[in-house]
Amino acid sequence: MTLLVFGHKNPDTDSICSSISLAYLKNQLGEEATAYALGEVRKEAQYALNHFNVEAPQILNIDDLTNKNVVLVDHNEYAQSADGIENANIVEIIDHHKIGGITTDVPISFRVMPVGCTCTIIYNMFKENNVEVPKHIAGLLLSAILSDTLLFKSPTTTEKDKLACEELSKIADVDMESYAMDMFKAGTSLDEYSIEEIVNMDFKEFDMSGKRVGIGQVFTLDIDSIFDKKDEFLSYINSTDYDMLVLAITDIIKEGSYLIYKAEDKVISEAFNVEAHQGVFAEGVVSRKKQLVPNLTSAIKNNL
Amino acid sequence: MTLLVFGHKNPDTDSICSSISLAYLKNQLGEEATAYALGEVRKEAQYALNHFNVEAPQILNIDDLTNKNVVLVDHNEYAQSADGIENANIVEIIDHHKIGGITTDVPISFRVMPVGCTCTIIYNMFKENNVEVPKHIAGLLLSAILSDTLLFKSPTTTEKDKLACEELSKIADVDMESYAMDMFKAGTSLDEYSIEEIVNMDFKEFDMSGKRVGIGQVFTLDIDSIFDKKDEFLSYINSTDYDMLVLAITDIIKEGSYLIYKAEDKVISEAFNVEAHQGVFAEGVVSRKKQLVPNLTSAIKNNL
Repeated sequence: MTLLVFGHKNPDTDSICSSISLAYLKNQLGEEATAYALGEVRKEAQYALNHFNVEAPQILNIDDLTNKNVVLVDHNEYAQSADGIENANIVEIIDHHKIGGITTDVPISFRVMPVGCTCTIIYNMFKENNVEVPKHIAGLLLSAILSDTLLFKSPTTTEKDKLACEELSKIADVDMESYAMDMFKAGTSLDEYSIEEIVNMDFKEFDMSGKRVGIGQVFTLDIDSIFDKKDEFLSYINSTDYDMLVLAITDIIKEGSYLIYKAEDKVISEAFNVEAHQGVFAEGVVSRKKQLVPNLTSAIKNNL
Repeated sequence: MTLLVFGHKNPDTDSICSSISLAYLKNQLGEEATAYALGEVRKEAQYALNHFNVEAPQILNIDDLTNKNVVLVDHNEYAQSADGIENANIVEIIDHHKIGGITTDVPISFRVMPVGCTCTIIYNMFKENNVEVPKHIAGLLLSAILSDTLLFKSPTTTEKDKLACEELSKIADVDMESYAMDMFKAGTSLDEYSIEEIVNMDFKEFDMSGKRVGIGQVFTLDIDSIFDKKDEFLSYINSTDYDMLVLAITDIIKEGSYLIYKAEDKVISEAFNVEAHQGVFAEGVVSRKKQLVPNLTSAIKNNL
């Protein structure tokens, strides 16, 4: 009976890449194992799969997991796992999250390490088992680690993650930084959305000193494709009936937001300590609740 | 703040030896860590400690574990752990039992492997970290693996356990088999008990075809010290007012029981397919419920 290997629901790049890589390792060690996904592959993981020419795992489509042998990667909580997981035989767990209260009837291999990514653990398992990592698997492992650690910007990053990426980028034959940026851009691309959809994607309205102020925020690393349409964004924003409107395009790698706005320059300049112009970069500004809203509130009050 | 490393309540040889060995490994890796025990050291573990000249861990005697950093070895269930464990910071778990439902707020190192003994995992951790195993630690690791696997007789034994013992017995400079037998003898010694106490230690009375039959069973590998007093056992047994009485002295390594009895030889011969004499070895007879009782019941009936 084949082992079913899968990550969590709403799978991210780590869940997709760790299930494929672990199934590959199991196969090399003589065990029948197949990777599955608990949901559609998202854009970022799809970029990695395309780049290394690997097929996406099938969506797990088994009504009854009773007595099926399953391996959980990148999660260790029932609630994040397949429906009916309580009836499956969990035979192995590999993860890097907090311990989630799973129980078994017999001892199993259960390996959680406080590292940035499940794929860091799986890469070490290849080494421990003296199994060679082929180029396409190296590429997937690398993609997942770069994704989970945000190119080592995340506080969850460890030396083990960095070391793994150094070694894997050589096998995968890519430049780590430029590959990561391309993958992040693909993953956060807003290409399929209209200007109106992007502005309203995560939009909230506030009353600030009697003014109706709208603040929209999107996270993307594909800034260029927004800026290519800056004038169209601006004319849409100006056409709204808000007294003021700020669209923050947040870049989590640069840790700041580009601003396109309907407002007086002096309000924007004071609020974010910049020389205001359309598309200005507000360094360090990443939170609407903690930065955009209070900063604008006080700047508007001061410039009534 | 020092890490508190401990095994389960009512600690066996693995719990004692894995906590000492892991604390040693942590120290070598530059972490402050101290081994504790959740109860008195039993005879078998004490034999190992004496043989390798290691002090027993202190009994954990901390009223409030709140915010203490603890490492659990040889168990991964709250119920088997220290009182108040729910309030401690569990920072690491190393075990070989079924998964017991522990939860944490943050990712930790949680390593369970389906091997015969926690010390097998810890030995591999020494290797993974390139830390030399000194003679006394090798001796403790070896003792625990031999104990948990019953010198590889237990069905939980894996190749990893055997390989570890081969390597460890060289470092510890002992002959694995003779050391194991000496340790088992020390661990199951009945020296401190009187003849009457041994016969009645685990004793049950039955009615078999109208006869009052008593069956006592003790587990020991220190058969010699029983046989040295065979005549005294026999005169005590004959002095009782049972119609028949069988004392089974069970040897779990040889997988059988030596019998001292008040009964007709022909009944014992038929019941256990042996040529009955005092102290005869009944091969394969290890269970009172499944073997001693039904075999005697039918032999007594046949010889009324």
